Amino acid sequence: MTIWTQNISKSTLAGDGVAAVVVAMMLIPQSLAYALLAGLPAEMGLYASILPLVGYALLGSSNALSVGPVAVVSLMTATAVGKIAATGSVGYVTAAIAMAALSGSMLLGMGLLRLGFLSNLLSHPVVSGFITASGIIIALTQLQHILGIEQSSEMPGGTLPALLISIGHGLTQWHGSTLAIGAGTLLFLLWARRYLPSVLRHLGLQRDSAELLAKTAPVISVIATIVASSILSLETKGVAVVGSIPKGLPAFSMPPMDGTLWRELALSAALISVIGFIESVSIGRTLAAKRNQRIDANKELIGLGVANLASSVSGGLPVTGGLSRSVVNFEAGAVTQLASIFAALGIAVVTLLLTPFLYHLPKATLAATIIVAITPLIDFRMLRIAWSYSRSDFTAVALTIALTLITGVEIGVLAGIGASIALHLHKTSQPHIAVVGEVPGTEHFRNVLRHEVITYPQMVSLRVDESLYFANAAYLESAIYAIVDLQEDTLAHVIIQCTAVNEIDLSALETLESIIHELKGRGIKLHLSEVKGPVMDALERSSFLDHMTGQIFLTQHQACEALKVS
Amino acid sequence: MTIWTQNISKSTLAGDGVAAVVVAMMLIPQSLAYALLAGLPAEMGLYASILPLVGYALLGSSNALSVGPVAVVSLMTATAVGKIAATGSVGYVTAAIAMAALSGSMLLGMGLLRLGFLSNLLSHPVVSGFITASGIIIALTQLQHILGIEQSSEMPGGTLPALLISIGHGLTQWHGSTLAIGAGTLLFLLWARRYLPSVLRHLGLQRDSAELLAKTAPVISVIATIVASSILSLETKGVAVVGSIPKGLPAFSMPPMDGTLWRELALSAALISVIGFIESVSIGRTLAAKRNQRIDANKELIGLGVANLASSVSGGLPVTGGLSRSVVNFEAGAVTQLASIFAALGIAVVTLLLTPFLYHLPKATLAATIIVAITPLIDFRMLRIAWSYSRSDFTAVALTIALTLITGVEIGVLAGIGASIALHLHKTSQPHIAVVGEVPGTEHFRNVLRHEVITYPQMVSLRVDESLYFANAAYLESAIYAIVDLQEDTLAHVIIQCTAVNEIDLSALETLESIIHELKGRGIKLHLSEVKGPVMDALERSSFLDHMTGQIFLTQHQACEALKVS
Repeated sequence: MTIWTQNISKSTLAGDGVAAVVVAMMLIPQSLAYALLAGLPAEMGLYASILPLVGYALLGSSNALSVGPVAVVSLMTATAVGKIAATGSVGYVTAAIAMAALSGSMLLGMGLLRLGFLSNLLSHPVVSGFITASGIIIALTQLQHILGIEQSSEMPGGTLPALLISIGHGLTQWHGSTLAIGAGTLLFLLWARRYLPSVLRHLGLQRDSAELLAKTAPVISVIATIVASSILSLETKGVAVVGSIPKGLPAFSMPPMDGTLWRELALSAALISVIGFIESVSIGRTLAAKRNQRIDANKELIGLGVANLASSVSGGLPVTGGLSRSVVNFEAGAVTQLASIFAALGIAVVTLLLTPFLYHLPKATLAATIIVAITPLIDFRMLRIAWSYSRSDFTAVALTIALTLITGVEIGVLAGIGASIALHLHKTSQPHIAVVGEVPGTEHFRNVLRHEVITYPQMVSLRVDESLYFANAAYLESAIYAIVDLQEDTLAHVIIQCTAVNEIDLSALETLESIIHELKGRGIKLHLSEVKGPVMDALERSSFLDHMTGQIFLTQHQACEALKVS
Repeated sequence: MTIWTQNISKSTLAGDGVAAVVVAMMLIPQSLAYALLAGLPAEMGLYASILPLVGYALLGSSNALSVGPVAVVSLMTATAVGKIAATGSVGYVTAAIAMAALSGSMLLGMGLLRLGFLSNLLSHPVVSGFITASGIIIALTQLQHILGIEQSSEMPGGTLPALLISIGHGLTQWHGSTLAIGAGTLLFLLWARRYLPSVLRHLGLQRDSAELLAKTAPVISVIATIVASSILSLETKGVAVVGSIPKGLPAFSMPPMDGTLWRELALSAALISVIGFIESVSIGRTLAAKRNQRIDANKELIGLGVANLASSVSGGLPVTGGLSRSVVNFEAGAVTQLASIFAALGIAVVTLLLTPFLYHLPKATLAATIIVAITPLIDFRMLRIAWSYSRSDFTAVALTIALTLITGVEIGVLAGIGASIALHLHKTSQPHIAVVGEVPGTEHFRNVLRHEVITYPQMVSLRVDESLYFANAAYLESAIYAIVDLQEDTLAHVIIQCTAVNEIDLSALETLESIIHELKGRGIKLHLSEVKGPVMDALERSSFLDHMTGQIFLTQHQACEALKVS
């Protein structure tokens, strides 16, 4: 069937088996936690961690990626679904399942149409800024759970101002037992990340095994707080617990086919798809590079699309590749996608048999798990790097972070996309245009402002450092006239050196024709030099060459030699 | 004050005076007609043709542009305002006045912030396609008036399917007298455009004067049909007439300051502003070029902004520069903006004294005027030109025309903008990357696929024909790995020739760093050659150079010489 099944051997089975156990142990608390973050019943997180893993394993291209609920996508789901239905309502759950179906269909469709390039609309710095801002929002929403304060009645997801007000109001009403559980778990997890590996090594474990085993710390805290909560009957003392989870595997059902609902979710689903895809592919690429393997973006789209459709039909929420799980899967020695299938089996067993034990699990424990998982993603260094490298990259990142924090994830992403594109168009709409002259004794032409070069009164040579297209056609026109006006009395030839012109679109072509026409009226000929092959091919398909008053020279040197004697 | 007042002399006064009379005579029927097209009372068209002309004359940069209501902007106004209030209601009129104020503020703001480049988001072919499609919609809406059929109760503006259904239903209910007036006017105007100039020349007029006088044919048809309608009491026979128009000049008033209304109108106002600005500037540029003058885009924004604000405070609708009027103004000899001020005075006099005579004017006459004015703008040649020149230009134009016809003007414009940008990003997201080798006996490097060149097993040279930025960073990475994989066994050096790289943004920079890192793991060094000054400056501001495993060479030739012996 798929290629990876041919790689299965005794040794890969061992690696995949170990990886599956560790990943399943990480996935249990994470899947419960991210379902709650999305405002959904905990079991939906488990459902989203069974079939989707199998779906991705069969069709995706990474052999290390671990798919399932992830923090940022869960936050975006909460934001989108919260606009349509109240948290806890049947409509909310239905909309989340529809969101998984819609996002899955979009990803699958993009993959089949080979539209992977669309994800390039978001620049790396913008994605990094978006994840940082989302991480802050996620951490603050979870802080409410740890403090045990009433959550604001506003829609889940939320914005920095709303969260700060809510936490400010709530600080006077914190709940002692909840805070004890939450803060205790938080401190334990932070300690475990830092010191557990070395403790385990002192107990005689290998370095790698110690590192791996330490990753299961969340499961230890889950078990410990379940025991504590159960013995101390914390639920009766006002500690929020996960409560009863339906036993058994999810029933299959078609996602809701409601045109109005799908339309309302469409934009959000597109944003979730793109963000989930970008996150997942960048994780997959990083891991693949370590083993000298490749990720196929269009196959990834198909794999993630099928994973989300699988999540939807089995009652789960939107999923994508998760960073921490995938790294653990990779480091635990997963060699083939069988690791993910084993992990899915593990979660299925838990869902079948162990859900009654999860009743007493405090939500504060899960909140602490999320905070510890999300804080490494909060990283403001990108702002400093962008500031020193380019103001336009900085503007895009700063805008994305500010708008994500202030207005929420959706406007944040859209602003990031918009700003990236607008700044790119702005830059290319005012291209660098240099008047060039010949460096004495060579055939090279350089900027007259930077070099001692030879120029002639009857001609001016311009090098345009950009493709000519609709966004800069008008600028080109003004710039040429401004330069021509300067030496109009003696000028007979304008030469545009097209070394950096990778394309001339129809708008620019029309502008060139109007420039030729105007210059002709003033007794000046327009010539081109060093036109690239594909550009020349296109010019020949149009009537442009009939309009030309001058010639097209192979090199700028030839143009200068021919025209300086004319 | 402004510069053009210094150009006034006896001879310019004569030219400006003649132009003013002709333009005023054209403006009267046009301004009434375009107000009706916008679904507004006829007098609002007159109001929009007085103060706005003065406002533009004082601040705009073209001395031939004639500002006032125009067909496409009126259609867009009808579409936008029709979503908020019912035609004929007070709210509809208020919203149209608010639209003029909002659009004026946006244009003025863009001008003051020097954001003229934003109008470049629309490519010429897309604008041309949009105007063609709008022209068809306008002609069909007016056809209903000429047939005298009940207009559909749907919002004004409309779409091709809705108009065709409405006309289809209405064909059985056409109104004889209305059709006679409308069709008669239409035939007269078409005849006048074709033959009136030569008739007038036979009567002894100069060629230019005959051409000009023929442009006033609409006024003749207005007078003739008023007389006919009045004598035959056509109103009592069911012919729709303009009806009573308030006498006197408009009262000044502040535009409605209603936050909700302004928010609802904001997107439409932005589209109207951009389309109006692009139309106006391209007319201004064409006329200015004929006299060797320049148009300043930012001054144009300010002039049009003030014109729209002036329209709003005097109870008018959104305005911009009109093609036919401006050409007539130019050809009639307008030399300074005084022509427009005189024309405004003429309209003011008409508004003060002659409105009672307009009572019996059949709406079908105005509809015929609009159809004759709009049909020259319907031009499908752009589709053919774009098809043969470039598929992506064709896609953008075809999409714009189709969506404007099917879904209306607003989605049409947005689709045009979106398609232009998406196609540009798509093209630049998969740049041409050539493996190059040295042409024997020269220092030139060309594509190995097209030329006989020298290559070496230990190095591969790539020329990337595009700036490196977020949209193509991922593509670059895959392309380089694919090329490296081909000769991995012997490869020690990869050289990227950056002749056509006008920019490297932060996303691309991070990608380059990860490429360097991966190649390093495989024992391959990455070098750059022919890096442009501004790009090099940016690289030096980052930590990129610390990551470099190879060197940065001034020329590709030097790189090859240095590495072929290593």
